[in-house]
Amino acid sequence: MKCDCDYILPTKGGWEHHYDNCISKWHSKAQYPKNEDGSIRLTNKNLMKMHQDFIYHLGLDTATYDLKAMFGDVKFVCMGGTKYRMKEFAKHMAKVLNIKDFEAKNLSKHSHRYAMYKVGPIISVNHGIGISSMTILLQEILKVLYYAKAKNPIIFRIGTSGGLKIPPGSIVISSWGLNGTLEKTYDLPVLGEIRKLPSVFDKRLIQELMSMVTEGDGFNTYSGGTMAADDFYRGQARLDGPFCDYTEEDKLAFLRKLSALGVRNIEMEATAFAAMTREAGVRAADVCVTLLDRLNGDQVTPDKELLLKFQERPMILVGRYIAKYYENNLHLIK
Amino acid sequence: MKCDCDYILPTKGGWEHHYDNCISKWHSKAQYPKNEDGSIRLTNKNLMKMHQDFIYHLGLDTATYDLKAMFGDVKFVCMGGTKYRMKEFAKHMAKVLNIKDFEAKNLSKHSHRYAMYKVGPIISVNHGIGISSMTILLQEILKVLYYAKAKNPIIFRIGTSGGLKIPPGSIVISSWGLNGTLEKTYDLPVLGEIRKLPSVFDKRLIQELMSMVTEGDGFNTYSGGTMAADDFYRGQARLDGPFCDYTEEDKLAFLRKLSALGVRNIEMEATAFAAMTREAGVRAADVCVTLLDRLNGDQVTPDKELLLKFQERPMILVGRYIAKYYENNLHLIK
Repeated sequence: MKCDCDYILPTKGGWEHHYDNCISKWHSKAQYPKNEDGSIRLTNKNLMKMHQDFIYHLGLDTATYDLKAMFGDVKFVCMGGTKYRMKEFAKHMAKVLNIKDFEAKNLSKHSHRYAMYKVGPIISVNHGIGISSMTILLQEILKVLYYAKAKNPIIFRIGTSGGLKIPPGSIVISSWGLNGTLEKTYDLPVLGEIRKLPSVFDKRLIQELMSMVTEGDGFNTYSGGTMAADDFYRGQARLDGPFCDYTEEDKLAFLRKLSALGVRNIEMEATAFAAMTREAGVRAADVCVTLLDRLNGDQVTPDKELLLKFQERPMILVGRYIAKYYENNLHLIK
Repeated sequence: MKCDCDYILPTKGGWEHHYDNCISKWHSKAQYPKNEDGSIRLTNKNLMKMHQDFIYHLGLDTATYDLKAMFGDVKFVCMGGTKYRMKEFAKHMAKVLNIKDFEAKNLSKHSHRYAMYKVGPIISVNHGIGISSMTILLQEILKVLYYAKAKNPIIFRIGTSGGLKIPPGSIVISSWGLNGTLEKTYDLPVLGEIRKLPSVFDKRLIQELMSMVTEGDGFNTYSGGTMAADDFYRGQARLDGPFCDYTEEDKLAFLRKLSALGVRNIEMEATAFAAMTREAGVRAADVCVTLLDRLNGDQVTPDKELLLKFQERPMILVGRYIAKYYENNLHLIK
């Protein structure tokens, strides 16, 4: 069965249209496979049969911890690569939401893997680098939200990237992810067979985020395609890795081809992030700053102060969105 | 041109046999594309043209830092997932090599990405989770070793994994890596096209490590195949992720298939680690402990003390190898 939306989700039995995730109904409530109260409805029946679930990389479990009490009020999850950045984001949100005496406590410290902070209705957590590291974190966060019965959560990724034909320091809000072979899918091997999961982001959320842009920002914000590379060097056509057997002309031709396809920036997570949040029926957006224009070079310059300033920009935009949401709902924040 | 070794390396112009990496000459010196003094010979000509190289994710560069003074004596690089484990390994090696007053200082702290320690002739550094995160670290370490002119370096990965039909707490020294579609390759998209790089480890180093095993170890050590999965849940046939549309029978059939192919354990880095170290002509070994037998379950149990004890085992074996190397060469350690 095939819908006019052109997007189908593969299942064990083959390729099937997944009405709940149909892109042509993207804005309708029916799209999200949620429970009536807005909590996530995960389709894995095994979870319901488990007496206790150890969420290993977060160092949490459903028996020792009361996940509903800890995370039942979560409305936003913000993820990013480094622990440093996500701790900064938690502090930033404490200021934005006027939460007094906030102490940035790493809730998953003893797992030694990720650092997770909670500030009011927001989880701020790092996911490391690349799709595999990010999807472990994302899947465990989805389980936490499921057990906590969090209502209608929204997940943001605030990241860094290389830009294409836009000034360094710009923000790109991803409309879709492109994989290394130039397809808009996240290719996941399951039981030895590749599944191609569509990697398209929630259009409404992009529009809502774009409406947060102001003239006084001092930088440009774009929406556009994002390539998710599996490798930082050859995977992004860089000339400065340990290995390189192509020329600068080859590199530039490739980057121009990406640009012509609508790609605005290159990072290492977008495809899987779009695909898995969509599969879970959770609205999500990938908001990255560009650290350089890849048409002009490969090296990320060392002006640490400027780089840190750039990295604040996605925080500012996402923080503004969350503040707007709570403008008349401050009573919702514990 | 094709050699009897059946292993060829792809280059820009197509698939070519790479004599230096020929598996049939695996034990010969000719295999390693090194300089006469044993330092790494990277084939990327662009590096020689660069006035200054910013090694971004390590927070180092060739102008501000004297990499030769800092790392010229490096003989061993040990990598692993978490910062905690690699700090512990650095402390362990200080004891083993009797290095007094060792202070574990994170040399790449201000990059916010990885944590790198140096103890005598050893770099101990974490690489995060998954191939993309590991290959960024590995490629930047290769550049550091290249600029530092380190002689005949050996790279170890000490990791955790899920075992197949072996007791939890066993060590597996990988003979090869298997990707998610059951091929012994690391599949890397370069300029939009997949390159399939052979993922086979150095046989001599495996034998040398196996010779370090003693009867008193209290655990078993195996050599065998290692599957490098791109995903922790469906990518490893787990039933306990947020998504799962296959049955327990499907899962077990898949794991038995892997076992029949010679796979002893599943982690998330082996293919790329074998392929890239081989491409650089650097001897390398992947030494992982198994935290569970995947035929008996999916969940990593929470007995933190036992897990930490398990994680020490690869450290002990690799530490013993390094100690053996320096047994009569303690003068080589600064």
